[in-house]
Amino acid sequence: MAGVRNVLFVMTDQLRADYLSAYGHPALKTPNIDALAARGMRFTRAYVQSPVCGPARMSYYTGRYVTSHGATWNNIPLSVGEWTLGDYVRPLGPRVGLVGKTHMRIDRDGFSRLGLDQGSTAGRYAAECGFEPFARDDGLHPDFIYDPDASYERYLRERGYDGKNLWQDWANSGSDEDGALLSGWYMRNAREPARIPEEHSETAWTTDQAMEFIRLQGDQPWVLHVSYIKPHWPYIVSAPYHDMYGPEDCVPAIRSEAEREDAHPVFKAFMQHPESQLFAKEEVRLTVAPTYMGLIKQIDDHIGRLMQFLEAKGRLDDTLIVFTSDHGDYMGDHWLGEKELFHEQSVRVPLIVVDPSDEAQATRGTVSDTLVESIDLVPTFVEALGGQVADHRLEGRSLLGLLRRGAHAPAWREHAVSELDYSFRQARRDLGLGPSEARAYMVATDRWKYVFYERLRPQLFDLLNDPQELVDLGADLGHQPTLRDMADRLFEWSRQRKTRVTTTDADVERLSSFAGKRLIGLW
Amino acid sequence: MAGVRNVLFVMTDQLRADYLSAYGHPALKTPNIDALAARGMRFTRAYVQSPVCGPARMSYYTGRYVTSHGATWNNIPLSVGEWTLGDYVRPLGPRVGLVGKTHMRIDRDGFSRLGLDQGSTAGRYAAECGFEPFARDDGLHPDFIYDPDASYERYLRERGYDGKNLWQDWANSGSDEDGALLSGWYMRNAREPARIPEEHSETAWTTDQAMEFIRLQGDQPWVLHVSYIKPHWPYIVSAPYHDMYGPEDCVPAIRSEAEREDAHPVFKAFMQHPESQLFAKEEVRLTVAPTYMGLIKQIDDHIGRLMQFLEAKGRLDDTLIVFTSDHGDYMGDHWLGEKELFHEQSVRVPLIVVDPSDEAQATRGTVSDTLVESIDLVPTFVEALGGQVADHRLEGRSLLGLLRRGAHAPAWREHAVSELDYSFRQARRDLGLGPSEARAYMVATDRWKYVFYERLRPQLFDLLNDPQELVDLGADLGHQPTLRDMADRLFEWSRQRKTRVTTTDADVERLSSFAGKRLIGLW
Repeated sequence: MAGVRNVLFVMTDQLRADYLSAYGHPALKTPNIDALAARGMRFTRAYVQSPVCGPARMSYYTGRYVTSHGATWNNIPLSVGEWTLGDYVRPLGPRVGLVGKTHMRIDRDGFSRLGLDQGSTAGRYAAECGFEPFARDDGLHPDFIYDPDASYERYLRERGYDGKNLWQDWANSGSDEDGALLSGWYMRNAREPARIPEEHSETAWTTDQAMEFIRLQGDQPWVLHVSYIKPHWPYIVSAPYHDMYGPEDCVPAIRSEAEREDAHPVFKAFMQHPESQLFAKEEVRLTVAPTYMGLIKQIDDHIGRLMQFLEAKGRLDDTLIVFTSDHGDYMGDHWLGEKELFHEQSVRVPLIVVDPSDEAQATRGTVSDTLVESIDLVPTFVEALGGQVADHRLEGRSLLGLLRRGAHAPAWREHAVSELDYSFRQARRDLGLGPSEARAYMVATDRWKYVFYERLRPQLFDLLNDPQELVDLGADLGHQPTLRDMADRLFEWSRQRKTRVTTTDADVERLSSFAGKRLIGLW
Repeated sequence: MAGVRNVLFVMTDQLRADYLSAYGHPALKTPNIDALAARGMRFTRAYVQSPVCGPARMSYYTGRYVTSHGATWNNIPLSVGEWTLGDYVRPLGPRVGLVGKTHMRIDRDGFSRLGLDQGSTAGRYAAECGFEPFARDDGLHPDFIYDPDASYERYLRERGYDGKNLWQDWANSGSDEDGALLSGWYMRNAREPARIPEEHSETAWTTDQAMEFIRLQGDQPWVLHVSYIKPHWPYIVSAPYHDMYGPEDCVPAIRSEAEREDAHPVFKAFMQHPESQLFAKEEVRLTVAPTYMGLIKQIDDHIGRLMQFLEAKGRLDDTLIVFTSDHGDYMGDHWLGEKELFHEQSVRVPLIVVDPSDEAQATRGTVSDTLVESIDLVPTFVEALGGQVADHRLEGRSLLGLLRRGAHAPAWREHAVSELDYSFRQARRDLGLGPSEARAYMVATDRWKYVFYERLRPQLFDLLNDPQELVDLGADLGHQPTLRDMADRLFEWSRQRKTRVTTTDADVERLSSFAGKRLIGLW
């Protein structure tokens, strides 16, 4: 029989769930990812803890809600005191590697306070979110943060590419007939092929690095985070993926004129952001979406390569595989671009888990509608590798029970919660809010999606009768009882954050049994 | 003119506010503490963040609510990632010393994860809650945790005392005519004089050590935490304090028969604890209270010594002085012993702040009814020493404005919050609650005191019409609007905990002004 010795934790960036054929996209075929779903369990209601890269990833890696780990937006450093996936699984044996993106920022003040050296083993892990950075690459290297020593930059340089910013000017630009650059930063260039051949692309490189890590491990156990930077913008892709899809393959935008009238103030402010203004135009949407699909198709092909490699190495039998994303992409739905708000396009992600164990045989190819959160992965990995889940810190729940006892197991979470700190966005300034007032919380149940905004009225959607979330009931007095119930759920959630992180419940039970031995209350 | 160069942060343990003459005790005269009040500002509504030593102190030292720092009860280690008073004020110049008790427990797992060495400077500070332990002594050394190398033990040994547990058998025991020990652990022995002369008592020793620290500093600036272990039990004191007061000096117990009927389940369960059962007896109360008063009188005399010493050294002119306690003592009121619940006897503490600055001249000897919390001290110290308050971590507010602009400054806090984790107590087991369900939160406004209990109904007291808190309105349907309002305050409070601890609001403002420079949303 097969047990779990390794974990392959694949993450894409900005991949919305419904842009995979397994999740129903009519034109985009992703047979390799679909094959994972056929071998494992596919979750239809998997939510990220924040629909933004940085906080979403810190929740994936810490197994804690954003409020608990505190890295509320991109580039907010993760406090040095936060425990991560690596801290939990490394003591169980495996080498814990990273290929690709984490969006981790080091807590320099915290390091300095504790006299921690980034050169020490422990310091290195704490600086890299618990991973050994086998080949870290966070993507997005515009000139003002360009690092010539980044892994993928070095790779391109070794391949003979020349210039100041190879990532930007080769991997993420096209060129016109005269050889002039057509930058991928400009979405009008989305249909151009990138200047590099596909085998030199970031997606190919990430896959190559992943295979190299696995090869080097031989028979030694590992946990590998393969973290693709795509299909995140710049929306540009190498041939042949750049013209594999066209406007005729695009699904219609999900949006209504009514949405724009009397929109919630935050929703309205986000509609004013430049990316939303652009994606509201059909021309932009139909230029970008085919390339977004091409980027996904490319990832699917590399997932195929990676699986063939695993099979050849005999690793399919002892490797738990997760395929997911850090958040979605509005792609013009609801008149928005990018992500951050809580519509399904943004906060829902694909999640497929393949458990190689015999115990999971019965659930292969099944679909679960259970409310799942990205914080559930760390406990899943720990349990799969035979560890004890540190539930005095970890706030998710292991999926292993679902994977092994079936998708029809009773629901074990009444609601999913996601959070947003939009203090860095123009919307916050437009609304006149302070840097600590721009917070929002989603509470989603089987039927309802509620969004609580500090200082502003809530939103409410009836997912049963309005699955496209086009009608906001948040100001509807007729729904006061539901609004109150959802607020109470959020209140309860807020009181349950795990901050007693140095002592387990078992410790409490053990120590409190000595209560009678205290020398207090004697006469 | 005088500016603040030093901070003398005096804490007593288990001293309830109304056992000082400055706070109205009719029989117990505390002229030296009263003299501080005459030179500074006395706060009538100062609340601790939890009416238990450990969490209360961690809030004093971190400037954060208990939920935020996570050390929710005695002996719960403070997470190594938590910043403390020392981290904030040491960079401003002063040596930051400790004499006496902190109740700090090291976060061993956190140290190990980061490869931190307790022998390093940073490691030592992190292990000692940010202080340099000039003479640490946490008191309470029963045989099962006896440490022969503890500072005060060594002191007693050097004075020629002999035996296995000097703290217990000399400093906290009396003896009968035949020389047999009468242990202070047994309250029936409270009226016995301790076996050591007063000048060798813990209170005297603590004061001696404080003076030694200050003497050694000469003209160099310092922040010194002088943390008396008394009047905490064991209730026993050296002559002449042991018979300075008698039953005739005791104030009547504040309690009613009605309280025992239909009491809130947690209140009722605490009434069953052995210390409560004992203190409910008049004999116990009248035996213990005179000694409790003696212990306080002794502290007052040593405060006098300490002030004379400061005056002689010229330090009264440049030292900010705080006198407070970590929580109170029921002393039989409400049929309870010890502390932990949220009646004023337990959660309210004396707080006197003497600001030597000329700017504080107008407020000397005044009284403030402002709602003040113990987390306000760290920001007060930082501001007084000329630092910038790190309000992305610190949750209190500096008192300096009140101290310098007057007690009649507008109220700047609408409610005070205190928390309780009673998971270690028998009450939790009696109520059948799990180790993470035994939580309670107090919200106190000018008029109301509300206590929210997980899984159980709330309590509500009308402080205006029932200042003795004898009538619990928490189950009274007529008070639903108030109960709802108080719950909403708690909900709001719970959303405002500071967890984005690595980035300041100013950072957010600065970084978000670059939002327009992102290369997103370009066509």
